[in-house]
Amino acid sequence: MASISRRGFLGAAAASAAAFVPGAAGALTEKAPRKWDETVEYLIVGTGFAGLASAIEAHTLGMKNVVVIEKMAFPGGNSVINGGAVAAAGTDMQEKAGIKDSADLLYRDILKAGGGIAHPDLARHIADESVENFYWLRDKIGVKFAAVTYHGGHSVKRSHSNTAHQGSGFIEPMLKVCEKYGIPIRMRTYLEALIEDEKGRVVGAKIREGYVFPKEKSGKVKYVRSKKGVMLACGGFAQNVKMRMSHDPRLTSAFGSTNHPGATGEGIQEAQFLGANTVHMDWIQLGPWTSPDEQGFGLCPLLTEPLVGYGPMVDPKTAKRFVMETGNRKVRADAIVAIGHPVVMYACEKNIMNQAVGKNLSEKMWAELQKSGVVHKFATLKELAAFYNIPYDALQAQNEKFNGYMKAMKDPDFNCKFFKDGVPNTEANGPFYGWRLWPRVHHCMGGLEINNKAQVLDARGNVIPGLYAAGEATGGVHGMVRLGTVAVADCMIFGRTAARTAKAYKPA
Amino acid sequence: MASISRRGFLGAAAASAAAFVPGAAGALTEKAPRKWDETVEYLIVGTGFAGLASAIEAHTLGMKNVVVIEKMAFPGGNSVINGGAVAAAGTDMQEKAGIKDSADLLYRDILKAGGGIAHPDLARHIADESVENFYWLRDKIGVKFAAVTYHGGHSVKRSHSNTAHQGSGFIEPMLKVCEKYGIPIRMRTYLEALIEDEKGRVVGAKIREGYVFPKEKSGKVKYVRSKKGVMLACGGFAQNVKMRMSHDPRLTSAFGSTNHPGATGEGIQEAQFLGANTVHMDWIQLGPWTSPDEQGFGLCPLLTEPLVGYGPMVDPKTAKRFVMETGNRKVRADAIVAIGHPVVMYACEKNIMNQAVGKNLSEKMWAELQKSGVVHKFATLKELAAFYNIPYDALQAQNEKFNGYMKAMKDPDFNCKFFKDGVPNTEANGPFYGWRLWPRVHHCMGGLEINNKAQVLDARGNVIPGLYAAGEATGGVHGMVRLGTVAVADCMIFGRTAARTAKAYKPA
Repeated sequence: MASISRRGFLGAAAASAAAFVPGAAGALTEKAPRKWDETVEYLIVGTGFAGLASAIEAHTLGMKNVVVIEKMAFPGGNSVINGGAVAAAGTDMQEKAGIKDSADLLYRDILKAGGGIAHPDLARHIADESVENFYWLRDKIGVKFAAVTYHGGHSVKRSHSNTAHQGSGFIEPMLKVCEKYGIPIRMRTYLEALIEDEKGRVVGAKIREGYVFPKEKSGKVKYVRSKKGVMLACGGFAQNVKMRMSHDPRLTSAFGSTNHPGATGEGIQEAQFLGANTVHMDWIQLGPWTSPDEQGFGLCPLLTEPLVGYGPMVDPKTAKRFVMETGNRKVRADAIVAIGHPVVMYACEKNIMNQAVGKNLSEKMWAELQKSGVVHKFATLKELAAFYNIPYDALQAQNEKFNGYMKAMKDPDFNCKFFKDGVPNTEANGPFYGWRLWPRVHHCMGGLEINNKAQVLDARGNVIPGLYAAGEATGGVHGMVRLGTVAVADCMIFGRTAARTAKAYKPA
Repeated sequence: MASISRRGFLGAAAASAAAFVPGAAGALTEKAPRKWDETVEYLIVGTGFAGLASAIEAHTLGMKNVVVIEKMAFPGGNSVINGGAVAAAGTDMQEKAGIKDSADLLYRDILKAGGGIAHPDLARHIADESVENFYWLRDKIGVKFAAVTYHGGHSVKRSHSNTAHQGSGFIEPMLKVCEKYGIPIRMRTYLEALIEDEKGRVVGAKIREGYVFPKEKSGKVKYVRSKKGVMLACGGFAQNVKMRMSHDPRLTSAFGSTNHPGATGEGIQEAQFLGANTVHMDWIQLGPWTSPDEQGFGLCPLLTEPLVGYGPMVDPKTAKRFVMETGNRKVRADAIVAIGHPVVMYACEKNIMNQAVGKNLSEKMWAELQKSGVVHKFATLKELAAFYNIPYDALQAQNEKFNGYMKAMKDPDFNCKFFKDGVPNTEANGPFYGWRLWPRVHHCMGGLEINNKAQVLDARGNVIPGLYAAGEATGGVHGMVRLGTVAVADCMIFGRTAARTAKAYKPA
C-alpha cells in the first residue's frame, strides 16, 4: 500500500524524467495573487462557538492580528440558536449537586453513542478538556450558569445550562470579549476559496466583502494572506439540499432544517477541493419532533417530547401506529421518513397538562402553539379524525388499543414505554389536542477529518499545513449519534485547540 | 447557497482585480508534462469485472486505442476470487426455472437493503440493465451459466451462477475476449497520479511501469495522455488499514480482509485530490464467518453459515452466547467486534453432517478444514472447553440451555431461529467440532460519487470531465448494505456505461 502523500509529489515529480511546463497546472486550486490585499496572522471563518473560541484563545496566546469573517449579516451561526448547555465532566458545579463524574465516563459515553465509529482520539481530547473549558467559559468569558441538566445518552447530569437557556448565553459574552480584545468580526464576508502555496500549504483565502447571502457573486473580491493559516469554523451543511442528498438521498427539499439558513457547507467543499478527507458524512441527524406547521426548530419539540408514551403517533392514512413513540431520535425520524408524509400525534388534555404545560412548555408557549395553528383542539376523537382526514373507525380502534396498552403498561406492537402517571386518552379525559410531525434536518455528524490538534487531514491521512477546522464542519468526533451538549464542548475545545496549533505553526 | 463549481473558478478569478502569477499554482494536482510518453484513447485502471467490461465495451463501440493497466502481477483483482454469480432480473434462465422477476422488483430490493441511502438513480440503472448485461455475458463473452441461485435479501432467485462457481468464470472469458480484440492488459503498472489540464479536465495519468506491489517508488514513471479520459475500476480499500480506520476506527490491523492484497484504495484517494466527492465510506462490510486460523475468505464460512441455528456461538471468556446466531452479517460481525477477541462456535457431529458436509461443503473441504487446524474434533464438551480455555461449568450450563431452546424452537435470550431438523448438541450426538470466528473486512460499500453515466462528481456535485469510475471504487449504489451478486452486475454495467460515456465525450 502506498503511503506517500500526494502533497509530497512535487519534489519527486520534478526529479523524474518528464519535465513540467510552468504555468500548465490545474485550475482547481486557487492560485496565490501577485499582490495580497491584506495580511493577517490568523484567519477564522465563522462566528459560532468554534470560531469565537478560537479567536479569543489566539488573542490570549499573543497572536496579534486575528480576524474572524462571517458570511451572514448576524454573528453566531447555528450556535446562537442552540439549547445553551455545554457538557463538562467533573466540575465543581456537578460536585455541589452531588454528581460524580469523570473524563473517563464522558469518553465512554461519547464512544457508546457513536456506535463504534467515533474517533477515539478526538473523543478523548474533548473528555480531557471539558472541565477546563467549563471554567474558561465561566471564569474567563463570564458565562453565567443556571443548572446541571440531563440529556439522553449521558451516564450522569453533566450538561451545564447557561442562564439564558440558549446559545446566545455563550455567544454574547464571547462577542463582548472579542470586542474588549479588539478582535475584528467582519460580517457579510464570504470565503470563496482557500489558497495554497507551491508546497500545498494553506497561505490565505479569497474572500468577498459586502457579500449578501446567498448571492454568489455579491461583494468585492479580496485576497487575504494569513501567516498562521486558515481556520474553518463554518458549520455543517443541513441547509444544502444537494450536498446532503449526495450522502442521504432521502433528504430532499421536502425536509426543512432546524438550522440557520447559512448552514450550507461551502467551507467543507472548499477544503475537499484541496484534497481534504471527509468522514461520516451520511450520519445526518433528523429531529423527529418538529412540526411542518411552524418554521425551524419551533415550539413543537417541547410539546412532543414530554408526551411520548402518553399519546399515540399515527399515520393519518391508516390511523395506525408505526413506531415505538419512546424510541430514540433516529428510530422515530427514520420511521416517519419511511411513511413519506407528516404523521399525527395527539393526546387528551389531562396528559398534556400533567406532562408538558407549565413544565418545559410555558403557558405562554402553549397558547402560542394553539394560536399559530400548530396544535388544534378537538372536543371529540371524531372531530380530530375529520380534521386530519384519518379514517375514524380505524382511529377509534387504534385509540382503544393504545389505552389498553397504557393500562397494562405493555405494548406488544412496538414496545413503547409507558409511565405510571399516564391517563387513558378518552373523551372523558378530553378534549383532545392534535399536531402534525415531520422531521427536520438537525445536525451533520460528518465533516472534514481532523486530528486531535484540529489540523485538517487529506485523503491519505496527512496534515494539510495551515488548515484547521472545528465544530460541525468536522466529522469523527461524534460517530453515528451525537450526545446532546457534547457538540458545544466540541466546538469550543477544538476551536481553542486550533488556535494553539496555529500559534505553534511554523511553515516548513 | 453557492452552487458555483470550484472547477469553474479560473475564468472568474482571472477577471477579478488581483492578477495571477503564472507558475505559482498549488502543488497538489499533478501537472501535465512537456511531452507525453504515450497517447491512448481510453485508459482503464484495474482488471476486475468493471475494468474488463469497460475495455470490451469500448472496443465494441469502435474505440481504437484502449489500454488497461493493473498494478498487481495477476489480473482480476478481487473479482477473480468472487463467488461467481451475477444478479439479473427477468432473464430467460429465470423464466425456465419458473421464476417471475422484474427490473422494478430488483430496484426495490436494492433500495430496501440500502437502508434508504442508496442512490436511486444508480440502483435504477443497474436494475434496468441487468438482463441485457446477463445476455451480454452469456452470448457475447461466452460465460457458461449453471443455475439461478438465491442470496439473502433478494425477493426471488436471481443470482446467475457461472459453472466455475467463482469469479474466474467471468474473468477468464473476459480476458480471452480482450486478447481476441487485441486490448493490451498491462500488468504491474501503477496509477501514481491523475493529470488534469488547465480547465480541470482529466487528460491523462502518471503511471509506473514494472511496478512491484506494494513498493511505492518501484517501476519507471511514464506519462500517458488519454484522449477520452481515465476510468477508475480499481476496487475498494478493505486492505488499507489507515484508510478504513479513518471511516471506521474499529477496523484496526487486528482485522484481516477477505480481499486480495491490492485492495488498497489509492485510486479513490487520487480522485479525492482532484476534488472528487466520496460517499458512504463508513459502510464497510465485515464477514462474520471467517476464521482467524486460516487466510482470506477461507473455507470456514462454508461451515459456519449452514450451522447457524444448529450450534451455539460463545465468548470463550464467559462461555456465554452474545448474539442471535441467525442474525445478518452486520449484526453478528458488530457483536463479535464488540467482544474484542475471537469467539468459538461448535456443534455436534450429527448437526454438521446433516447440514454442511456433502452439501455446500465438500468432503474434501471438510477434511481440509480439520487437517489445517481450523476445525478441531473433541470427544467431549469438557475437552472442547479445555482446548479453547472456556470455563467448563458455565459452558455446560450454556450448552444445556441452548439444547433446551432448540427443542422448544424458541430463544428468549437472542431470538435465534431454529430448524426442525436440528438435534441437541449432546455427548450422545457427538463428537463435537469447534472453530474460532473473527470477522474480516469484506466489502467497501462507499467510494467515489458517480452519476448514472459513471462520471465522477466533485465536492459540489459537478462532473469532473474525463474521469469515470465503476465498481467497488464507487459508492452510493448499495447504500448501507449490499445484496449478494448485485455488486457483480454493478461492476459490469457501470464499467460498460463508462465506456459509452467516454466514447461520446468531447472535451469542451
